[in-house]
Parts: sequence; C-alpha cells; structure tokens
Amino acid sequence: MTFAATVLTLYPEMFPGPLGHSLAGRALGEGLWSLETVQIRDFATDKHRSVDDTPAGGGAGMVMRADVLSRAVDDVLARRPEVPLLAMTPRGVPLSQARVRSLAAGPGVSILCGRFEGVDERLFEARPIEQVSIGDYVLSGGEMAALTLLDACIRLVPGVMGAASSGTEESFESGLLEYPQYTRPNDWEGRTIPEVLRSGDHARIGAWRQSRAETDTRLRRPDLWERHGGARVGEPSGARRENKDE
Amino acid sequence: MTFAATVLTLYPEMFPGPLGHSLAGRALGEGLWSLETVQIRDFATDKHRSVDDTPAGGGAGMVMRADVLSRAVDDVLARRPEVPLLAMTPRGVPLSQARVRSLAAGPGVSILCGRFEGVDERLFEARPIEQVSIGDYVLSGGEMAALTLLDACIRLVPGVMGAASSGTEESFESGLLEYPQYTRPNDWEGRTIPEVLRSGDHARIGAWRQSRAETDTRLRRPDLWERHGGARVGEPSGARRENKDE
Repeated sequence: MTFAATVLTLYPEMFPGPLGHSLAGRALGEGLWSLETVQIRDFATDKHRSVDDTPAGGGAGMVMRADVLSRAVDDVLARRPEVPLLAMTPRGVPLSQARVRSLAAGPGVSILCGRFEGVDERLFEARPIEQVSIGDYVLSGGEMAALTLLDACIRLVPGVMGAASSGTEESFESGLLEYPQYTRPNDWEGRTIPEVLRSGDHARIGAWRQSRAETDTRLRRPDLWERHGGARVGEPSGARRENKDE
Repeated sequence: MTFAATVLTLYPEMFPGPLGHSLAGRALGEGLWSLETVQIRDFATDKHRSVDDTPAGGGAGMVMRADVLSRAVDDVLARRPEVPLLAMTPRGVPLSQARVRSLAAGPGVSILCGRFEGVDERLFEARPIEQVSIGDYVLSGGEMAALTLLDACIRLVPGVMGAASSGTEESFESGLLEYPQYTRPNDWEGRTIPEVLRSGDHARIGAWRQSRAETDTRLRRPDLWERHGGARVGEPSGARRENKDE
C-alpha cells in the first residue's frame, strides 16, 4: 500500500524538493509513497485569483481567506475522506514522534500550507483540520513544515528503511533521547570508544546504553524526563527527587 | 551585510531546494543571504571515500566517523571562525525563536547535517559544535532540519521582509502563541469576524488580541504558558492558580 501525500500550497514547485533525493527520493521512485500538490490559487474565483486579504483589525501582512481555502480543503476532503487533513501552523499541537508513527501507519496525509500572517481562524472552526506545529519558531510558510513532517513519516513507511532499521531504538520512541553513538577508529585524537562498547557483552552494552539515554535526557531535556516519568527505570530514587525538586 | 550559510552534507543537491523559491529565493537572488554547500565525502581519505562505519557495540545502521567529519568541520571553522557551527540532531537543544533571532542578527551560520544513525559522539566532545534539535521527532537526516533552521533565520535577515513585517507580533516573540487572524469576507458560511476587530478602536483591538493570545496559549500550550510566567499579564489570579495546580 502506498502512503499518499497531498499538499495544498501556493508553491507547488517546492515539492518534492529535498524529498526527491536520498531515502525519500528512492522510495518515491519505487512507488512506496506518492505526492500530489494542489495549487490553492486554482480555487480563487475573482479575476485577480486572490487568495488573501488584509487582517481584520489591522496589522502587517496578509491573511489567507476562509472562502478560498475552504473550496480547496473541501475538494481534498471529498476526494480523500479517509486521510487526515493537517495544517502546519505555530499555533498547532507540537508534532511528536508518536503522531508521526501513527500517520506513517495510515493511508497518507493531506497538508494545508499557510503563508503570510496565517489563515482565517474560521476555517479551523468550520472544517476537520488538525493544526500541527513542528516547533516553537516561525517559518516563512507551511511548506517547510510540511516537508519536515513528510520526511519524518516517509522513513517509517513500510519498506522504506530496511527491516533492521525499524527505528524503535531511536530518540523519543521510548520517551528518551537516544544514547550516544561511536564508531571506528577506536582511538581518535587520543579519545577512545567507551570500553563497554568493545566488550562484546550484549547485556552490559544494553545496560550502558539505557543508562546513558536516561542520563542525557535528564541533563539535556528535563522537560522530556519529567514527561517520561523521571526515574521510573533503573535510576536511584535520589536522582528523581533531586530532579523533581528543581 | 550578507547572511552567509555554509552546509556540510552528503547531499548538497538538496540545497537550496525550497529555499530557492518565494521569500528566501528572492532574497538569495538579491544577495541578502548566500549559500555554500560542502560535500563531507570530499574529506574522506580511503579509496572508497567512506564516511561511516558500523556502530560500536552493535546495532542497526551506520555512524558517521569522527575522523572524517572533523576534517570537514576544521576546514569550515578555519575559513569562517566568526560564524557559529551547529549540528542538527534530535539529541540537541530545542530550537527557539530567540535562538533564530540571534542567529539572523549575526554573520551567518554553518550547519553540519548528520545522516544514518548519527555522528560519533567524540566529535561533539572535541569541537565547538552547538547541537540543535528542531523538534521531538526523527528525520531521515539533518538536511531537512538545516533547511527549516535556515528558513526561520532568512526571513528575519534585514531587508528580506518589508519593514512593516518585523515579525515582532508573531508567535513565540512574546512567549505566547499569536492571536487568531481574520480577513474578509465578513460573513462566511454564517460565521462573522469578531465585532471588536471591525470597531476601529485600536486600544480595544489590542486588548482583545492580547487576551486571545494568552487564552489560546494557556489552553493549547500549558508548557509555554508556564514558561511565560502564567497569568503575569492581565489574567484573573484564579486562572493562574487553577492552571498551576493541574
């Protein structure tokens, strides 16, 4: 089954862009996923094909019109009712690896890319659109966010990565950052690979990696660590209390 | 002054990609920012030009070698010592709009794009590299993250957006989500633009927008709201206590 992506945008020429290369590009060529772009401007009805207007109440920039966008959205919802429709916006729910995984396991995704100062809020009140944010920063439009979301999904589509690389040991899959990685040469500028990783003792290696994943998450991302449940797995209880008291 | 981006990658053909269009593309054409890609493979020294090897301790995939990457990194650090060097990795510090703004105000950015299962950790111990994450999900490589970071920076480079769109009223600039936007038509499917936005009363409009930014942040992003300081501005104190007790 093909993972089918539909992107509603004013800049279809941005797609597939970077997704036409490397892992995603090969998978596109092999038909493991498909890409359709929809030019939002084709749903404008005036002679200027306008898609935006000035913000109600004043302010800089332009806002995308609900009447034009709704026609584009309704067209996609009618053609692909089984596929979730997302809109990329900094006001959305932060994208998580869990949401990426659930999307990748489904039939595909339709994505509305906002531009300018945003989209008329009434569109989100009136249509079943999931507002998603890829991070707490502002982009020039939803296109780069859509490409990022698609990249995260496509690598998890069955057949895209080898079976050996299922991604289940990666950052966020267990609510933790991934452990650090090392490879040859063993001695680089006087720095050596941790001895345990050269021991061949898989139980010790597994325990070391779990411990490093927990330590790095606690030190680098106390927010993730708290959500993970703190010292639930194998940490001395003092570490948890210390962390929770901060 | 030009904002100069240098990207170290195994896939230089992915750049400028989407940044060659629209706002960033025009700015690139006008010389407001520049882009240089560095092929990491050019710094390999064996006959196979190998850049990666199997993970120490076992596991799927390949890890990028510290010896090869350090030569690429040292070359860029020597040529552009005044420019911060970032590496895109899910183990990094989450990208913030504040970091984007500080980068955009500087001379540029150099970005190392990891691929495969990651980069030998010793590189980060031995070189001044800022590890940055664009979000809590896993991508096929650092390239899409680099494009996203550059898109966020470039729009803030002086001259890229008009003076009227300084971006200072956007999401995250004040630690809050942006207020919702509306535009014509006033009546769409029986839904009308909030009356206050049509009042012409700039003080009332400003107060309404501030209130909506606060409410939406509190309801949609309690994490941001807490970091913002909760009900610091103009909220009834009951709302703060309720939120903090959850």
